Amino acid sequence: MKTNKTQVKRVPKRGHYDFETVAKILDAGLVCQIGFVVDGHPFVIPTAYGRMGRHLYIHGASASRMLKSLLSGIEVCLTVTLLDGLVLARSAYHHSMNYRSVVLFGTAQPVADPAEKMTALKAFTEHVMKGRWDEVRSPTKEELAATCVLSLPITEASAKIRTGPPIDAAADYDLDIWAGVVPLALKPGNPIADSRLSSHISIPKSIETYAQYGF
Amino acid sequence: MKTNKTQVKRVPKRGHYDFETVAKILDAGLVCQIGFVVDGHPFVIPTAYGRMGRHLYIHGASASRMLKSLLSGIEVCLTVTLLDGLVLARSAYHHSMNYRSVVLFGTAQPVADPAEKMTALKAFTEHVMKGRWDEVRSPTKEELAATCVLSLPITEASAKIRTGPPIDAAADYDLDIWAGVVPLALKPGNPIADSRLSSHISIPKSIETYAQYGF
Repeated sequence: MKTNKTQVKRVPKRGHYDFETVAKILDAGLVCQIGFVVDGHPFVIPTAYGRMGRHLYIHGASASRMLKSLLSGIEVCLTVTLLDGLVLARSAYHHSMNYRSVVLFGTAQPVADPAEKMTALKAFTEHVMKGRWDEVRSPTKEELAATCVLSLPITEASAKIRTGPPIDAAADYDLDIWAGVVPLALKPGNPIADSRLSSHISIPKSIETYAQYGF
Repeated sequence: MKTNKTQVKRVPKRGHYDFETVAKILDAGLVCQIGFVVDGHPFVIPTAYGRMGRHLYIHGASASRMLKSLLSGIEVCLTVTLLDGLVLARSAYHHSMNYRSVVLFGTAQPVADPAEKMTALKAFTEHVMKGRWDEVRSPTKEELAATCVLSLPITEASAKIRTGPPIDAAADYDLDIWAGVVPLALKPGNPIADSRLSSHISIPKSIETYAQYGF
């Protein structure tokens, strides 16, 4: 998946081009950023997504500006970025962050077939929370029609990963300055039940598992 | 700051156009996504940033592809997205996320003046961790020269915020399905000292405060 566009130019050793590495980062993320060009102007919009095999799916109301633009088959650049830590060096200059990111180029295509659309929506819901799809009310025909699903092949993609401690200038290692990493992770808090929820309904298995393992 | 570009079209009540709301989200984030157009193709790249008043700063190695492109004064669309929770509805269709996001349009300008560059780098380091700038070795002249800083005015910007419980279809409130919110937050873990750190160097105040309050 290494092309001129996806090739990691800055710090090449952080670049990864295998599908498995890319898929793992996509599966660990929740929100992607979709960049596209309208009348020569750049637009970037955050949105949720799902993955099925070698395709990534996004969705939204059929009326949305973003989806209307994307439906015309324009090129997109999609990114997912997971922040793993603050890298605190002895000098301001060598401060950095630990992260896992994916950049994916392609042309999004609308999913027209209702069965494929339904499968994509399942992947979508399951991506947010595994096991949730079977617990909730499935989409009606009307809801399916009001939802626009776009598919993007995961072919022209690359991952960039930074891990580990700060890399300081040789002379700076003697300085009396604390250096290291403050890990960061997106953590789930205690579930907040909807105020209109009947008291006899307990927290389902999907959420219990999620809270336990997080990401 | 409401223009045709920044106007929130989907769910307009979630749109905010005042500087304070935008600044607060920018200050709470750590990574932005910069979208720009090169030869008609969209590019989106994640990067760190800092804010001083009504300007947002990004930086990087003078040699980087992104900064080389941006130096030519091209238009950018910059986004910051903070994920606050999974919104779990009774139907798959009404699942959503709680979030705070900013979209900012503008043209990035290189910061040439060394004094302004240094102030921007301070804002940058302080954005990552308050109090850190005074604890570490300052940039040398050579490091300053090797760093490219770009400034982007915070003028054409909007925020979009979703908070609160799921909004279900009226008939679905009677279903025996758990609904509510699983809050999400980027949390700091225990600091990991660099293996080359002398044992007499203790964790500085900046990190202690950070770990205590997080974001």
